[in-house]
Amino acid sequence: MGGNKGIYNNNTLEAEDRRSGGLLLSCKGWVMRVWEFARDEPNRVIFSLKVGLAILLVSLLILIRAPYEIFGTNIIWSIITVAIMFEYTVGSTFNKGFNRALGSLLAGVLAIVAAQLGLLASRVFEPIIIGISIFLVGTVTSFVKLWPSLAPYEYGFRVILFTYCLIIVSAYRMGNPIRTAMDRLYSIAIGGLVAVLVNVMVCPIWDGELLHEELVKGFDSVADSLEECVKKYVEDDGLDHPEFSKTVMDEFPDEPAYRRCRSTLNSSEKLDSLAQSAKWEPPHGRFKHLFYPWSEYAKVGNVLRYCAYEVMALHGVLHSEIQAPYNLRAMFRAEMQEAAGQAAELVRRLGMDIRDMNKTLKSSLLKRVHDTSERLQATIDMHSFLLVSSYEKPPAAPMPDGDTDTNPSPPGETYHEMMRKTSRRFYTWPSREVDAYEEEAAGVSAVGSLLVPRMKALESTSALSLVTFTSLLIEFVARLDHLVDAVEELSSMAKFKSEVEL
Amino acid sequence: MGGNKGIYNNNTLEAEDRRSGGLLLSCKGWVMRVWEFARDEPNRVIFSLKVGLAILLVSLLILIRAPYEIFGTNIIWSIITVAIMFEYTVGSTFNKGFNRALGSLLAGVLAIVAAQLGLLASRVFEPIIIGISIFLVGTVTSFVKLWPSLAPYEYGFRVILFTYCLIIVSAYRMGNPIRTAMDRLYSIAIGGLVAVLVNVMVCPIWDGELLHEELVKGFDSVADSLEECVKKYVEDDGLDHPEFSKTVMDEFPDEPAYRRCRSTLNSSEKLDSLAQSAKWEPPHGRFKHLFYPWSEYAKVGNVLRYCAYEVMALHGVLHSEIQAPYNLRAMFRAEMQEAAGQAAELVRRLGMDIRDMNKTLKSSLLKRVHDTSERLQATIDMHSFLLVSSYEKPPAAPMPDGDTDTNPSPPGETYHEMMRKTSRRFYTWPSREVDAYEEEAAGVSAVGSLLVPRMKALESTSALSLVTFTSLLIEFVARLDHLVDAVEELSSMAKFKSEVEL
Repeated sequence: MGGNKGIYNNNTLEAEDRRSGGLLLSCKGWVMRVWEFARDEPNRVIFSLKVGLAILLVSLLILIRAPYEIFGTNIIWSIITVAIMFEYTVGSTFNKGFNRALGSLLAGVLAIVAAQLGLLASRVFEPIIIGISIFLVGTVTSFVKLWPSLAPYEYGFRVILFTYCLIIVSAYRMGNPIRTAMDRLYSIAIGGLVAVLVNVMVCPIWDGELLHEELVKGFDSVADSLEECVKKYVEDDGLDHPEFSKTVMDEFPDEPAYRRCRSTLNSSEKLDSLAQSAKWEPPHGRFKHLFYPWSEYAKVGNVLRYCAYEVMALHGVLHSEIQAPYNLRAMFRAEMQEAAGQAAELVRRLGMDIRDMNKTLKSSLLKRVHDTSERLQATIDMHSFLLVSSYEKPPAAPMPDGDTDTNPSPPGETYHEMMRKTSRRFYTWPSREVDAYEEEAAGVSAVGSLLVPRMKALESTSALSLVTFTSLLIEFVARLDHLVDAVEELSSMAKFKSEVEL
Repeated sequence: MGGNKGIYNNNTLEAEDRRSGGLLLSCKGWVMRVWEFARDEPNRVIFSLKVGLAILLVSLLILIRAPYEIFGTNIIWSIITVAIMFEYTVGSTFNKGFNRALGSLLAGVLAIVAAQLGLLASRVFEPIIIGISIFLVGTVTSFVKLWPSLAPYEYGFRVILFTYCLIIVSAYRMGNPIRTAMDRLYSIAIGGLVAVLVNVMVCPIWDGELLHEELVKGFDSVADSLEECVKKYVEDDGLDHPEFSKTVMDEFPDEPAYRRCRSTLNSSEKLDSLAQSAKWEPPHGRFKHLFYPWSEYAKVGNVLRYCAYEVMALHGVLHSEIQAPYNLRAMFRAEMQEAAGQAAELVRRLGMDIRDMNKTLKSSLLKRVHDTSERLQATIDMHSFLLVSSYEKPPAAPMPDGDTDTNPSPPGETYHEMMRKTSRRFYTWPSREVDAYEEEAAGVSAVGSLLVPRMKALESTSALSLVTFTSLLIEFVARLDHLVDAVEELSSMAKFKSEVEL
């Protein structure tokens, strides 16, 4: 049998499994996709085998004669419990088990009380009392589970509801509510125990581990996306740009890191729920001490997301419809790339430190990042005359040529020539309003044209987009302070081991 | 009984309910909170009552003698089905019901086949074959449900697993698998039917309706947040600013619209899942035609989110640590507020059109928005000499005083005086690097100080933050084109009724 062999050879497991099941597999392509799906994340195969194992163990209690004679048919409740309770990770299985246990217990107690009350009443009123109690339990549990802070226990309230109904109804028809409740509870307990044991003993998949990896991945994707975005901004000449349209809006196929960064932006719920589940887990693996600060991970994730917003804004400028001319962008390439590179390096280092659970001082790296960002700022300032329109060209300013290696435009080319190159693109914005603009011009020119010729105004605005880009980049660097602080707090709370500064 | 009275008087229901249950209620404060919780969203109370009603109806099948004699104890499966299947909205109940039905059916067929196979084998091998089949079903269903496109049917795979185990195990111990399977299936069908009927007949809560409202709310919050942000930017003098720190980072208590805008940003999953569920719903209420384009709602939500990113970026500049001096910001107040006001007006109008399911032409409104944004752009250009450092102050430029009502700084105050006012704030950035900066200055000044005195460089960069803000605002306006297009597509696909342009 494929599945049985698969235990010893995970690599071909699911393909074999499918072949023997004949499910969904009509061609080789499917086999390949399934195979890749399993290889990407071997935990998936492990999880599936664990479910099979747990459900088999519980079924054995019925299939083998000896335990069946002890437990009887009630043991089928264990099967349901395993099927419903078994979750991907240890933390969420514990969480669901807790819900199930507490819910069943509460329902049992409630049902016994209600059933005894029913027995006190006359035979005629008993079903009425039971009916009313069922209605009440249904209404109250459904209302309470909508309460936001109780939302994680939604499953527990469902358990209360159906366990209560089952016990009280069976008790009514078969008598002896306490016996019925106890039978049900111990078979649920057996199911829960099997689910938890298999989940923890056999290759456990820890929420804490996943959370840790997820956070590290977030750092990497923010760093990659920042570099990618700045690289594209300074290198892209805007000619082979796909048209900005709804179809590509949320999917830039040539920017893999962007998509990852966007998923970091949307990861808050995922991190929160992982942190929530991780709290249920006992100390394990690298996370050895009790009360490990899992919620601190979610906080660092928050600060990281705050940096990611800035990357999204940079990305927005990169794809915005008003663009600084290419040569102008190229002129500041070295500074921009240096600042972005240093910032990305710092973010990546922070991520690596979390990954390796090291605690290193980042001050020298942080200082270097700030230095490069200040150099960028200074360069922009020095060349600010290029960015605004003015009648007199300022006297040829001496180019800085020390460590800030600017990339001056080819000598034969004037600023206006550069501008003309990108004018085709520029004039596409705002596409439907060009005529309106001309129309309007008559009115505005009365006040404006004396000072700024129309063409100049357009030029200058498009050049200012470069200022936007660099300000956002500098602001990103400013926010890194907070990121460093957050990571430091995590390091000390989680007792990462200190290392000497690199 | 509180719950019974509550049916006729929803307003006091849950308070009464709790009082009679004595659950969680120790003081008046709790009652008030619960009361407000219910009043905010009366659907919550309706939902709870519906669950109570459905579970009561199913229980009656056991509690009343006549149906009990027909159906027997198997009917308890109906109770479980109702408890597990009953969801807040019609669409998700249908979805879950479909999962339950198809899962049970598949499991029934599988179980019958496996059980017959087992019967063919000898008595010794039968449990072995059953055990292996259980393991296989457990492994395969668990693996398949991890497949991303099958994730919405996760519940269905759980149903297959436990129904299969239940049927095959009971069949093994009690014989006659087909009989067992049929008994189980029809009691599940009864439970499902009751759940669906109660959900649809009694005050149905439609996913489509929720999706519609959610999208409209998104438009409003983006518009509000834009106005709020621009208003704060031009009016805030930066003196009573709370310090930017981790604690306030994601929570700006004085900006209610910001939080709503942020939730719009995170709403993609919510919209997607609502759209997914809404597809299960039959035509209802205002959404009369078959195949109503629910997925188009999610697309409009995407474009709206793309605009919201821009608002977040504006908000980022508002709270960034490098700030343009207050008087400079105030100088462009009229234009900025006009552009933001017009843009917000357009967004709100789009939202209103969706709300009322009207289709109006937005071209004149869109033109007005573009006009104001161009006016802002022109004003910034005309005053761009204020934004950069240069040795000679340019000759006093004639202020535009036509329709663009700028707010010039008080006459007695020079630009440098303005600057000094905000220097306290400015120098807090980058807090830990001020010394490093001075240190560095020696190196940079060799190339830079000849051209730009240090103080000037700082001034100019901080002033450029204003440019960032306005560029982002103008970019927001540019993106409105796409928003208008998306809403127009939705209007025509959803056959909104046309109205004459306002």
